[in-house]
Amino acid sequence: MSFTEFPSRILENAVNEFASLPGIGRKTAFRLVMNLLRRDAGEVKKFGESLIQLHEEIHYCKICNNISDTEICSICSDNKRDSSVICVVEDIQDVMAIENTRQFRGVYHVLGGIISPVDGVGPSDLKIENLEGKVRNGGIKEVILALSTTLEGDTTNYYLYKKLGSYDLLITTLARGVAIGDELEYTDEITLGRAINNRNPYQQ
Amino acid sequence: MSFTEFPSRILENAVNEFASLPGIGRKTAFRLVMNLLRRDAGEVKKFGESLIQLHEEIHYCKICNNISDTEICSICSDNKRDSSVICVVEDIQDVMAIENTRQFRGVYHVLGGIISPVDGVGPSDLKIENLEGKVRNGGIKEVILALSTTLEGDTTNYYLYKKLGSYDLLITTLARGVAIGDELEYTDEITLGRAINNRNPYQQ
Repeated sequence: MSFTEFPSRILENAVNEFASLPGIGRKTAFRLVMNLLRRDAGEVKKFGESLIQLHEEIHYCKICNNISDTEICSICSDNKRDSSVICVVEDIQDVMAIENTRQFRGVYHVLGGIISPVDGVGPSDLKIENLEGKVRNGGIKEVILALSTTLEGDTTNYYLYKKLGSYDLLITTLARGVAIGDELEYTDEITLGRAINNRNPYQQ
Repeated sequence: MSFTEFPSRILENAVNEFASLPGIGRKTAFRLVMNLLRRDAGEVKKFGESLIQLHEEIHYCKICNNISDTEICSICSDNKRDSSVICVVEDIQDVMAIENTRQFRGVYHVLGGIISPVDGVGPSDLKIENLEGKVRNGGIKEVILALSTTLEGDTTNYYLYKKLGSYDLLITTLARGVAIGDELEYTDEITLGRAINNRNPYQQ
């Protein structure tokens, strides 16, 4: 079935909106809209409003730039967390992933991206000034660079190291190594090489 | 990544709404919402409004029950179409599929479903009264039953035939046979059996 003629412009608009999402083609978009049409009006209104709220009511934490319903996010306003240890991440998915490990009790700094000349993202597009400001104000013991292990991640790490290296603090990165559950023969050679070089004493 | 804790209720709402759609899991829903968050506020507002409009502004044609932006749809209000030939279909996807063939110049009647006792859909849930009303008012030469070739479709066909069979009109169904491009050896035996019984004179 091609979609040359829609019986309604409103229907067509909704299909076009869904089809603009990544990984959703026009057939899937149409199927989703038909599903919404079969629901109660109130339910679909709630769906639409939840999208409008996404931009109109969501906040980005003034301290760490994490997404939040309030001006200061629940992590930054939690005084049981150690605000002298800042974990620098690319975006909020990374915050959620690290939070889910329940291993980190410091705070975050969300860059909102990563330096990528190919995509036209430079240091000035990211929240790097803020981060340097926090370090300059003092009281920071450690900055953990928790960026992706890609060329862009390495570039951003290097840039941040150049900016922050002169301050009196520890700059660390996540441990790289063989993932838990991975078989050695399927581990790529760069990861395996790093894992050998950074080997740890065996712990029972 | 599991989603035990969202940093924002608004974010979580939007993810839940997307995850309520058929075929969209929570990970995909999250990815879609992150895509929307990266867009302009105006663009996302338009998306949300397009969903709200779906129920608030869309009409169902008063004559054929097809979806429409106006009270009478563009097909029913087109006086070049033959309103004495009514093609009965299950839903608007079927109208669009038949319209795309550009082979049909009559009008439609959208039942809004199909008789399915398993799903609790009975004749009174469908727009069957209206259809009988149109036939009773006269001027209808042919009713084409264009429903799915499923048990439910056959049940609905039978019910409609019982309702309309006593009026002076032609009741037809779509031709069944081997689909164009299909290989005989992969055609199911019921279709192939019907295709042999309903064979046509060869046309060069």
